[in-house]
Amino acid sequence: MHFLMRGDLSDVRRDGIFVRGEGENFRASKVNCYNSTKEIGPCDLVIVAMKTTSNSDLVDLVPPLLHEKTMVLTLQNGLGNEEFLAKHFGAERVLGGLCFIAVTRHSKTEVERYDYGLVIIGELEGAAQSRTHHVAAEFIRAEVKCKVTDDIALERWRKLIWNIPFNGLSILAGRIDTAAIVRDEHLRQLTLDLMEEIIEAANQCRHPLAQDAWREHIKRSEKMSGYKPSTLQDWESGKPLEIEAIWGEPVRRAVAAGGQMPRTEMIYELLKALDHTRRSK
Amino acid sequence: MHFLMRGDLSDVRRDGIFVRGEGENFRASKVNCYNSTKEIGPCDLVIVAMKTTSNSDLVDLVPPLLHEKTMVLTLQNGLGNEEFLAKHFGAERVLGGLCFIAVTRHSKTEVERYDYGLVIIGELEGAAQSRTHHVAAEFIRAEVKCKVTDDIALERWRKLIWNIPFNGLSILAGRIDTAAIVRDEHLRQLTLDLMEEIIEAANQCRHPLAQDAWREHIKRSEKMSGYKPSTLQDWESGKPLEIEAIWGEPVRRAVAAGGQMPRTEMIYELLKALDHTRRSK
Repeated sequence: MHFLMRGDLSDVRRDGIFVRGEGENFRASKVNCYNSTKEIGPCDLVIVAMKTTSNSDLVDLVPPLLHEKTMVLTLQNGLGNEEFLAKHFGAERVLGGLCFIAVTRHSKTEVERYDYGLVIIGELEGAAQSRTHHVAAEFIRAEVKCKVTDDIALERWRKLIWNIPFNGLSILAGRIDTAAIVRDEHLRQLTLDLMEEIIEAANQCRHPLAQDAWREHIKRSEKMSGYKPSTLQDWESGKPLEIEAIWGEPVRRAVAAGGQMPRTEMIYELLKALDHTRRSK
Repeated sequence: MHFLMRGDLSDVRRDGIFVRGEGENFRASKVNCYNSTKEIGPCDLVIVAMKTTSNSDLVDLVPPLLHEKTMVLTLQNGLGNEEFLAKHFGAERVLGGLCFIAVTRHSKTEVERYDYGLVIIGELEGAAQSRTHHVAAEFIRAEVKCKVTDDIALERWRKLIWNIPFNGLSILAGRIDTAAIVRDEHLRQLTLDLMEEIIEAANQCRHPLAQDAWREHIKRSEKMSGYKPSTLQDWESGKPLEIEAIWGEPVRRAVAAGGQMPRTEMIYELLKALDHTRRSK
């Protein structure tokens, strides 16, 4: 395993990474990290785990890692990432994955884990192949729960049922966590309205989500003790927000399919405006 | 003219009220102000100009001002104020009015005027009567531009075309003024989407606003140099927000008429949540 660390390389080389959370605390003291992908060289599997707001950097970062059969797996949020990789590095290399985790990076070398979570991976197009199962087996060997899906696009929409409302409202409703959202009857209703809108849009885009697919997401959030969604974490640490991947691209796809997502679009426009206002201050 | 001043009575008694603005600055040094409506006693016309968030106080404040023929004119924002007065003091007394002004109260005794504006008044139900014209003549005698309408409910919806987007987005997009909203292409689009939604809802509620009624509102905002809508002023001075009158009541009426206002409803829920978050901090 080789890690590209464009930021905190010297800190992580010195201190490793400390992971804390209920039931298990450990320090990965030797992290195999690098300053550039050229130092790493060709690999069998490239896992893309950076923020989607840096996707344009991938155009230069990925090529040194590729040999003829290298697979590129994106574990990023939102829609459009597999397609971006396919466009630049060839569709045959691309796998997509989703992380159902709840972690917060408190400092350069310290991560808090709220939940063990799950990774779901699949091929860019169509059913899982033997290579998909092989990659999943590697995750499982590293004690990361991992499942394979025959339809990653459907699973991405399913994950958006959570990310679109919770990541958005956590910022727009005044920087609050998931517990505060489900506790407030109005925000809870707005969350349900958004979830319904997302499920309808997914179906219009021919990703057949069940009408009650929102149920598991609300349940999951009720069980979580207050968690700050990644976009709120990004906001608080002054990082760019993944606005296009989580809100912009779903809205564009729904509109292209003849539908509309008025509530999601509103979050989209408001977050862009908030982000813009913040930067210009 | 008698003014009820529940707050800044001693300041205004001492300093009067200073009004500044392009072309004219003056101090009203003797303001006929009172601490309670009992001191004022029965009047021919009661003008209600307080925030709608204090409407419940009117139940006790208004009765000492009433004689048999006293008219009660609300100049407040949003929907539901005439009905509130009618319920408590009798429908036959009630007139409604709209203020198209742009003023900011900078301190207890200082007001800045950005625009001379206009007052439009009408009867609670149906066409203007001779008393309506009589009240309008009093405004005009005081050099306040005033028009009479035969359909105040329609004019209230027309005013909401402006208040619903601008008052809401000014807070939700990061405490910005009207100029920043019309300058940002996304917020401008969102404003137009909201305006369309409001016009549709008005028509569903049988208030026939023209499909292009948004045009004059956008023009007006383009001409204004950045103005902070009243709700943003309230937010910045820590006052309660007029959420029910401006967003809640229109949404409820649209839903009751079989329509929906998803974007307006979202502003409504988000403002309630923001307000709640702010109070609990």
